[in-house]
Amino acid sequence: MPTINISMKTINRVAIAGGVHGNELTGAYLVKKFLQTPALVQRSNFDTVSLLGNPKAVEARQRYIDTDLNRCFLQDLLNNPTSDSYEASRAKSIRQMLGGKGVVGDRPVDFILDLHSTTANMGLTLILVNEHPFNLKLAAYLSGLNPKVRIYRWLKPGTENAFLNSLCELGLSIEVGAIAQGTLDARLFLETEALVSATLDYLEAVNRGNPPEVSSEITLYQYLDIVDYPKDETGEIQGMIHPQLQGRDYEPLSPGDPMFLTFDGETITYQGTAIAYPIFINEAAYYEKGIAICLTQKISQKIT
Amino acid sequence: MPTINISMKTINRVAIAGGVHGNELTGAYLVKKFLQTPALVQRSNFDTVSLLGNPKAVEARQRYIDTDLNRCFLQDLLNNPTSDSYEASRAKSIRQMLGGKGVVGDRPVDFILDLHSTTANMGLTLILVNEHPFNLKLAAYLSGLNPKVRIYRWLKPGTENAFLNSLCELGLSIEVGAIAQGTLDARLFLETEALVSATLDYLEAVNRGNPPEVSSEITLYQYLDIVDYPKDETGEIQGMIHPQLQGRDYEPLSPGDPMFLTFDGETITYQGTAIAYPIFINEAAYYEKGIAICLTQKISQKIT
Repeated sequence: MPTINISMKTINRVAIAGGVHGNELTGAYLVKKFLQTPALVQRSNFDTVSLLGNPKAVEARQRYIDTDLNRCFLQDLLNNPTSDSYEASRAKSIRQMLGGKGVVGDRPVDFILDLHSTTANMGLTLILVNEHPFNLKLAAYLSGLNPKVRIYRWLKPGTENAFLNSLCELGLSIEVGAIAQGTLDARLFLETEALVSATLDYLEAVNRGNPPEVSSEITLYQYLDIVDYPKDETGEIQGMIHPQLQGRDYEPLSPGDPMFLTFDGETITYQGTAIAYPIFINEAAYYEKGIAICLTQKISQKIT
Repeated sequence: MPTINISMKTINRVAIAGGVHGNELTGAYLVKKFLQTPALVQRSNFDTVSLLGNPKAVEARQRYIDTDLNRCFLQDLLNNPTSDSYEASRAKSIRQMLGGKGVVGDRPVDFILDLHSTTANMGLTLILVNEHPFNLKLAAYLSGLNPKVRIYRWLKPGTENAFLNSLCELGLSIEVGAIAQGTLDARLFLETEALVSATLDYLEAVNRGNPPEVSSEITLYQYLDIVDYPKDETGEIQGMIHPQLQGRDYEPLSPGDPMFLTFDGETITYQGTAIAYPIFINEAAYYEKGIAICLTQKISQKIT
């Protein structure tokens, strides 16, 4: 039996969340599976808690009941005793359980893995929401295991992170697609499960003091900006993602490339000054948020 | 100007419905487009009315508010003064406007074209819900124009048709996919619009007494049966469409072929005795209806 170097131990408890959005069934059904067979996510040197993020929304097969749970983890909202939407109250319960944002937590965790899916053709995407070297190393490890894995980093200085992942410095989200809301895709389900398992193996190795070697540099897609659909003065959309852009997440978009096709047949092109890498192209849940596309910058990131 | 043979005139008014399901945006936005520019769907010898089927559900980006509108066109429900769901009341209003099922209608129509989308990979599917030779000829015409068009016929003797299309003997539905609920796909939007336009051109030619020649025989996919997901005793699903079946709508399924993959990794095979042709594979809206797959029989149908 290998010796566990207690002084190196970083992770005591891990949370795996799924169904934070009720119509993203991949995470919801993975969590249900883990709740039924906890041994699948147990490792030798930490505890794992599997958590159905938004049970009412999962039951209703809707993204949310009152409001998007994954935008409810804001300090002001969490500390506001009068915020009374189902999701605001659920966010408070989750913080009370897992800890974070000023609360110790009943069963505090050191790492949060949050499972999502998207209607965009984003394959297997890891989402980082901070620059912590631990998360970067893990992302480098996972992308080294499977070259289909891509890493997206959402950083927006001056904006408080409202995601579930904001409860804990260590952790990431897995975003898989294209999957229609309210459906399961077996291939992506299995690939997501493999990523969860590899993440837990990695954490176990870190706790043992012998984390696997990772590449010294990785490719990251760094958040740049969002683009909304063309709309009329009443806010009604006037066009769609252009057929030449549909499904082309992570492919370079050059100034002058088609972005939208209006219902009248007019092509609207990308007016940026440099190549960008679009993701979340045609994500169903983002129509109401005024997001047709997220633009990212492709960068090389040193792993230290 | 061609002479119109009035005695041949069959069609005086046509209804084009979209958004009968509020999260099927293709039909909803085509109808919005037609309402804004009615000339697109006007023809020389009949009137066209464009109809947003379920405006509240379109606004909410949900399939329905209380219940599935496209299962509300049952005689008993339409004649029941106490049925008070939003959709039951909407179905009554639509019947009062278009006529059918015992009501003359304020603006009675002779033909209904109903636009739907599906998360299944069904391409461009025409759905017939009766054996009327007029509809068969139109389907033959449309499939002759575009070889990607497939014809599905839903006939279930002894079961009353509850679809909007049941208000009128003449008409069909167009079902396009794969499209995630709550999204638009520009390519399929344009292809659907072309089918609408071709349908109207055909009706105009019929009214003129010179309908185009069509093939004397067509391939139909005839409804056979439905298959539900594997479930436990509480009704919770225990598996997914098998990766080898996912996206393979209209391809032959032989006895012994994989149908489902359980969450535990077990493959469940097709236990039928003959080849069937599955459609509506992994349609999001059918999870709650207990339908994972619709099985059809591929038949040759003479056009008379």
